[in-house]
Amino acid sequence: MLLLHRAVAPGLQQAYRLKSTPARLCIRACCTNDSFQPQRSSFTFSGGNSSTRRWRVMGTLLGLGAVLACHDQQCRASQESPRRYTREEVKSHCSPETGVWVTLGSEVFDITEFVDIHPGGASKLMLAAGGPLEPFWALYAVHNQPHVREILAQYKIGELSPDDKAPSILKTSDPYMDDPIRHSALKVNTQCPFNAEPPPELLTENYITPNPIFFTRNHLPVPNVDPDTYRLNVVGPPGGQSLCLSLDDLYQFPKHEITVTLQCAGNRRSEMTQFKEVRGLEWSLGAISTARWAGARLCDVLAQAGHQLCETEAHVCFEGLDSDPTGAAYGASIPLARAMDPEAEVLLAYEMNGQPLPRDHGFPVRVVVPGVVGARHVKWLGKVSVEPEESFSHWQRRDYKGFSPSVDWDTVDFDSAPSIQELPIQSAITQPKEGEIIGSGEVTVKGYAWSGGGRAVVRVDVSLDGGLTWQVAELEGEEQRARKAWAWRLWHLQAPLPAGIKELNIVCKAVDESYNVQPDTVAPIWNLRGVLNNAWHRVHVHVAP
Amino acid sequence: MLLLHRAVAPGLQQAYRLKSTPARLCIRACCTNDSFQPQRSSFTFSGGNSSTRRWRVMGTLLGLGAVLACHDQQCRASQESPRRYTREEVKSHCSPETGVWVTLGSEVFDITEFVDIHPGGASKLMLAAGGPLEPFWALYAVHNQPHVREILAQYKIGELSPDDKAPSILKTSDPYMDDPIRHSALKVNTQCPFNAEPPPELLTENYITPNPIFFTRNHLPVPNVDPDTYRLNVVGPPGGQSLCLSLDDLYQFPKHEITVTLQCAGNRRSEMTQFKEVRGLEWSLGAISTARWAGARLCDVLAQAGHQLCETEAHVCFEGLDSDPTGAAYGASIPLARAMDPEAEVLLAYEMNGQPLPRDHGFPVRVVVPGVVGARHVKWLGKVSVEPEESFSHWQRRDYKGFSPSVDWDTVDFDSAPSIQELPIQSAITQPKEGEIIGSGEVTVKGYAWSGGGRAVVRVDVSLDGGLTWQVAELEGEEQRARKAWAWRLWHLQAPLPAGIKELNIVCKAVDESYNVQPDTVAPIWNLRGVLNNAWHRVHVHVAP
Repeated sequence: MLLLHRAVAPGLQQAYRLKSTPARLCIRACCTNDSFQPQRSSFTFSGGNSSTRRWRVMGTLLGLGAVLACHDQQCRASQESPRRYTREEVKSHCSPETGVWVTLGSEVFDITEFVDIHPGGASKLMLAAGGPLEPFWALYAVHNQPHVREILAQYKIGELSPDDKAPSILKTSDPYMDDPIRHSALKVNTQCPFNAEPPPELLTENYITPNPIFFTRNHLPVPNVDPDTYRLNVVGPPGGQSLCLSLDDLYQFPKHEITVTLQCAGNRRSEMTQFKEVRGLEWSLGAISTARWAGARLCDVLAQAGHQLCETEAHVCFEGLDSDPTGAAYGASIPLARAMDPEAEVLLAYEMNGQPLPRDHGFPVRVVVPGVVGARHVKWLGKVSVEPEESFSHWQRRDYKGFSPSVDWDTVDFDSAPSIQELPIQSAITQPKEGEIIGSGEVTVKGYAWSGGGRAVVRVDVSLDGGLTWQVAELEGEEQRARKAWAWRLWHLQAPLPAGIKELNIVCKAVDESYNVQPDTVAPIWNLRGVLNNAWHRVHVHVAP
Repeated sequence: MLLLHRAVAPGLQQAYRLKSTPARLCIRACCTNDSFQPQRSSFTFSGGNSSTRRWRVMGTLLGLGAVLACHDQQCRASQESPRRYTREEVKSHCSPETGVWVTLGSEVFDITEFVDIHPGGASKLMLAAGGPLEPFWALYAVHNQPHVREILAQYKIGELSPDDKAPSILKTSDPYMDDPIRHSALKVNTQCPFNAEPPPELLTENYITPNPIFFTRNHLPVPNVDPDTYRLNVVGPPGGQSLCLSLDDLYQFPKHEITVTLQCAGNRRSEMTQFKEVRGLEWSLGAISTARWAGARLCDVLAQAGHQLCETEAHVCFEGLDSDPTGAAYGASIPLARAMDPEAEVLLAYEMNGQPLPRDHGFPVRVVVPGVVGARHVKWLGKVSVEPEESFSHWQRRDYKGFSPSVDWDTVDFDSAPSIQELPIQSAITQPKEGEIIGSGEVTVKGYAWSGGGRAVVRVDVSLDGGLTWQVAELEGEEQRARKAWAWRLWHLQAPLPAGIKELNIVCKAVDESYNVQPDTVAPIWNLRGVLNNAWHRVHVHVAP
């Protein structure tokens, strides 16, 4: 329980440190409910319920005003004996045209008329349209209150058919059959391997991304690791001994805890595709998330194995326990200099936001390399070794590299470009959404900004006219540590709109502490793998008359 | 003498490491001739003549082909008794229209017809038009050979009037009257204080910039420091002792030597001015230069004074011996974490390219902070202290900061932006020049690329059509050390031109090892002080039919 408190408390403090914005509803995350991240293994921390209660109390305090505001809505709950619906029928009611239905337990609700008065916004509620509310209430504990249930009851239209079980889509011969169940809010890019991102509406709702909606980038099926028999093989230096570490062994190293943003090199690839086709997953702007990670420092473990910094360039190679049908494991490497630098804070992490790592995020141990591209944060870590060369893994040598726009698949020479390690300055707009119709008078723009290598974000400029004029956004939260700014900054801008304006071309661009800036356009940084898109992010919206 | 050899030898090796380009004339720098950088103090290394001879031998070997190539030129040396000319008359002959005259010693030459057949190119020779050749021959020792003097003799038209001394423009009441004499190739921005840059033709002619044409950024008059009585005051920690170091004391610390590029934050400001007026010196693209620096590591000196890294943020403050009429010294600071990190290689430098620092570059001691903006490399260093806050100097707190384009002099809040430390990725084209008429068939584009924070340059893209299509330039010299790439990369591209093409819009942009790129345009990074211009560099040229 103490472990959990230690991890949750900083998150609370961070929430309170946000500069207050006038009369804004604050809804904070809860991610302690395990029911949507089933741990099939026997390895769990006890005491989650008590922590959940703490969150619920806080949720009530923060959410009460919102709940009271819609307490006097028209009552239209059915008084007749309940009608029965299949899950398929519910699923087909997922838009204003068809009506918006949701379920809670076995009850079915038609909330079509409630959507527009949802205190958290229509778009967030629509994420649950046609399906169960539980995954979202697990994230936003403020809902799980008697007052909210009372409101919901007014919209009840019937119950689920008792025989209608959720269909299993997995076949027993499928190598992915043992993959964990995922949160329904995730926007799935590919199911096998599982690659998914949180929708923009949820991405920047919390400084710390709740575990169930943290973006997931898997290259292979998720291994099912038994924590009792798990061993990490740390190869010793030439002539030395290797370490074979159990989880308990790893817990003996000093526990180090840091907040780190992970970003996939392919984040915002879909914008590159619009310019010219690339090979890769069609990530929108959500292949980035932030968590509080805890574990042993890699430098401590390497030192224990007898490694030390050497004059010549060397690399720490990681191998995952995930493997393809030939038995080849996922692998990657980072320079030894970074691995051995205590200030670089590279972790062998076994906790994510105060919980054991979810299976999708590397249970029981993953590498966390602050400031570095996600691909090097190897999950389900099986082996660590120090080598004179980079990892020979496909993902180190034949992927995750940047090229000139002039390079195509006929001319590409993967050896000519360095593997991506630190990522460049990045920012994106999460609100409003592309094509949205916004109210007149004022606009609120929200988003995230982050830079690799621990470089702090020092400014975000926002334009409403496609980049002709700029306004400085307000950075939320505390100032970051210089050179060790591992986590993103959320930001917002509230700006009045000229009367009669019909559309906005909203643009954002960020600046980091080395005064690196984002490039204006996508085409000149286009590359055949569609990585490293950090061009200005642009959103076009219409203004209601 | 050994000291000098140690410093010169790496430069020679670097020159040879350059990839050879076909049938290209190699002219390398010599900067050991002191006559144009007079040391008024008594502090000099002995043995400079021997080193100069070494350079001359090398110059002969490299330059012989070039010299022979023009040995059979038409002889038109005057056989009559010499005519007399004033320096003023010579000065007025500085273009093809007026004729091109130069002097060597007391002799006057009309080299109008030689300009176009100068093996090193017409544009470089024109830098000397209307004035003495000596400053350029001091740089390019290949010229100082009997064969070259023989060629020159053919163009002699007379002698300087014996009474015509070079006029002194300094008045005795002028605080700048004691400033050193500078090289005439420098393009002067302001004379008092002296701010000047090398012309593009010379800037990338050598990987190591010769001392006499290294860009100079002075904020105040150049102090004239007596090396015998010079003392560096290193303030100790609270309760500790301060150090009072003579030059000899400083030489007792281990001597550390590194090649570092310095760049002024205002480099390429003139392009910003074209978009909208800014306050600042009108630097072209030459406020950047590279030298081999040697001195004591700051971390060693601080450790000797009893300083160590602390958990809280702290800063190392530097004060120069240059001061304004109120007695206020130039000052700046860097974070203690950088100062104490041996890998950051911060120097208290007393040698520049194997010589004592020239007076314009901080004699006898300056700070060199690899990867960081020039303004922190405090010259004529008088005092070092460790403080909980940044330097209170004007140049740390009220200058050298970046702002949004929306900020003007009415709204600027200097406290809202961090002082510039590491600089962003940068590149520029030094050949061809804006507006030049180039030959058809093929174009050769040359330039430099550099990034702050030790981030290596991994690629330079060049476009001939304004950014629509790109080609990858060839990076010259050795690959840089990752994370410790303190010096620039020179690069070139040779590209065929389509028949009939009339003009080129040449653009370059570089990528560093963190995959940071340059922004496309100047306007969105415009700021009221005109600093940090790292937009794509663009050069428009005409193609001869």
